[in-house]
Amino acid sequence: MRTAWIIASGTELILGQSRDTNSAWIAAQLAAAGVRCARMCVVGDDLAALRDVLSTAAAAADVVVLTGGLGPTDDDLTRQALADVSGDALVCDEASLAQIRAFFEARGRQMPEQNVVQALRPSRGEALPNPVGTAPGIVMPLGRATCFALPGVPIEMREMFAAGVAPRLRGAQEGPVLLSRRLNSYGLTEADVGQRLHDLMRRGRNPEVGTTAEMSIIGVRINALAETVEAAERMLNEAEAAVRQRLGGAVFGTGDDTLAHALCRRLWERGETVAVAESCTGGLIGKLITDVPGSSRCFVGGVVAYANSVKEEWLDVPRELIQRHGAVSEPVAEIMSRQVRERMNATYGLSATGIAGPQSDSSGKPVGLVYLGLATADGAAARTIRLGDSPREMVRTRAAQAALGLLLRRLEPL
Amino acid sequence: MRTAWIIASGTELILGQSRDTNSAWIAAQLAAAGVRCARMCVVGDDLAALRDVLSTAAAAADVVVLTGGLGPTDDDLTRQALADVSGDALVCDEASLAQIRAFFEARGRQMPEQNVVQALRPSRGEALPNPVGTAPGIVMPLGRATCFALPGVPIEMREMFAAGVAPRLRGAQEGPVLLSRRLNSYGLTEADVGQRLHDLMRRGRNPEVGTTAEMSIIGVRINALAETVEAAERMLNEAEAAVRQRLGGAVFGTGDDTLAHALCRRLWERGETVAVAESCTGGLIGKLITDVPGSSRCFVGGVVAYANSVKEEWLDVPRELIQRHGAVSEPVAEIMSRQVRERMNATYGLSATGIAGPQSDSSGKPVGLVYLGLATADGAAARTIRLGDSPREMVRTRAAQAALGLLLRRLEPL
Repeated sequence: MRTAWIIASGTELILGQSRDTNSAWIAAQLAAAGVRCARMCVVGDDLAALRDVLSTAAAAADVVVLTGGLGPTDDDLTRQALADVSGDALVCDEASLAQIRAFFEARGRQMPEQNVVQALRPSRGEALPNPVGTAPGIVMPLGRATCFALPGVPIEMREMFAAGVAPRLRGAQEGPVLLSRRLNSYGLTEADVGQRLHDLMRRGRNPEVGTTAEMSIIGVRINALAETVEAAERMLNEAEAAVRQRLGGAVFGTGDDTLAHALCRRLWERGETVAVAESCTGGLIGKLITDVPGSSRCFVGGVVAYANSVKEEWLDVPRELIQRHGAVSEPVAEIMSRQVRERMNATYGLSATGIAGPQSDSSGKPVGLVYLGLATADGAAARTIRLGDSPREMVRTRAAQAALGLLLRRLEPL
Repeated sequence: MRTAWIIASGTELILGQSRDTNSAWIAAQLAAAGVRCARMCVVGDDLAALRDVLSTAAAAADVVVLTGGLGPTDDDLTRQALADVSGDALVCDEASLAQIRAFFEARGRQMPEQNVVQALRPSRGEALPNPVGTAPGIVMPLGRATCFALPGVPIEMREMFAAGVAPRLRGAQEGPVLLSRRLNSYGLTEADVGQRLHDLMRRGRNPEVGTTAEMSIIGVRINALAETVEAAERMLNEAEAAVRQRLGGAVFGTGDDTLAHALCRRLWERGETVAVAESCTGGLIGKLITDVPGSSRCFVGGVVAYANSVKEEWLDVPRELIQRHGAVSEPVAEIMSRQVRERMNATYGLSATGIAGPQSDSSGKPVGLVYLGLATADGAAARTIRLGDSPREMVRTRAAQAALGLLLRRLEPL
């Protein structure tokens, strides 16, 4: 199996001021293309270090992927390091320069002179177009490796990898392959999932099965190593079937699927719609649903009823109800979901009101206490969830996920 | 200044199935103890790779920190790699063995035989007690470096670092310290910022100044190396003043500050409030504002007017206006902001309507075209932004940031 080294550069990374999220993403993509990552390295914006790791990598691996250091400023050194290690001169890529100019023109601005350096590449290199930003990437032979230099901005790096790197790697595929698949589940704990998959997760097994927990979502990873893509895919299919059989309706999707994707799919199938009324989540439930392309076919809209005045005036929550039970209460969640459903003419209404923290409100209710409301044609009901004294971001994210999960489970019981 | 290499091991890391969060944490702790991380490496559970990177690190750095590979199973190889590279025999550390037994006994269980290996250490090594788990760490001289082997479980690693590593590093502290600061700017491109800071960013300068771009936000990092903490802080203060002078009002905050933080602070100071009307951003603007603790003091709420029916019924956008100009248009953005301001009784109304993609709507307007509305007591106005044919997530995030930036700039011009 071909091997790869991944090199991320950035002084902010090496000093621990930001976290490198690119390398893990790249490694997973490489595995899917039949290339096993053997080492990841992070260096600062430091030409000597970059040259050193690049020449070691080019001697050790079949594929080298660099990320970062392609911007327009003096601390962007990847182009120079590639030229130094290869012995090539840096030349201006005219097509890239035209593209960079066009990027600025499309935004009604002139290209700053500083951006010209982004069109440079080593003479034996080839530019990889950047569909979403100014910095083109570079692909070139180096030592025994094919070397790809990609931007450090995650979204630009991902688009360029998908468009320019993955197809080239797949074209050159030979020898054993490692294929991976991920199933996503909601509604079981990681220990529950572990218990149900106990025998599949035994060490040394091929395919290998493991779990990862991330905010109420338990992912199940399956890795299959085989001589051919077909054989590896067969192994993945068998393992996936076994996992699905053990976990039942808890599996809502695969790969990068979110709960919101799964919910939209169900609503599309049923020709139904949802509207949301959010207090503590402040727009996050709507944001998660509208992350899904095509969500306009099932998402009508919502009210962010952060202040009590908005709850009263826009969702007809009676003031005395808030005075009696508090804005964070079951009856308020219930009315919010019912009102938004009726008033926005949606099949379902979903609501959240809770204490996101870091402090409680005047009621003294505990941080992490959240009430969710779900309204259907049959009426509305609220559910209490307790998320403990967790950080604000965690309370809000888990509350929003739980709201999506509440409706998904209604449409597709476990 | 002393330098360090950080080595993380784990097959799940190298395949991109889990993300290494330890290395960035360790690097930040090292910097605080006067040790600059020069390289981070990730390898799989693979003895040859571990030996290779360990011997390179021990020749290159003053401090080597390893994380992972200290568990009781066959793929935990750090002890063996240390013994192989140092030439030391592995010996049983009786105190560690007693501690591991005690750990199990305290939980009413007998120590599995398998855990005995966790008490092994190279003969010249010393055990680092683990206050929260079974695996002790190891500290030993190796090449020119002092080498610390820590567990991979983040909470165990952190406790052991704080108790066993940081005091030793600080004890040995001598000579220079590295302090860092980050300023965040909005409204200039990375190239603009680079041009204005050109001389400050010259390579080899101390303090070192670098930029990072993340969706419309350009961060400026300053690292100062000096003999004393006081001298380093003085350098940071001077460099910060110079950067602020060059970038003017574009600097909105420091450290982890977001645009929403800066906006909330201005609104709090002025005793003013904002309400939002969102179409293409689907709740994201409200989400970003309510990410800020205490945002209830300046954020009233919002309407997510995703469907046109919600724009008409909840925000009084005339149907004929939508028919004439389209839902994605300047006049619609303007009315949305005016209506939400008036109806929610806020000082400001902010709106966004655009084509988030991946496809255009029936109007055929281009993906990335977004209209933002800002309503004040003096009336409402719309602004057009063109984000090119970017991924949906990017269009939405940049549109939401631009909406926050629009109001922030109104309160605090560049």
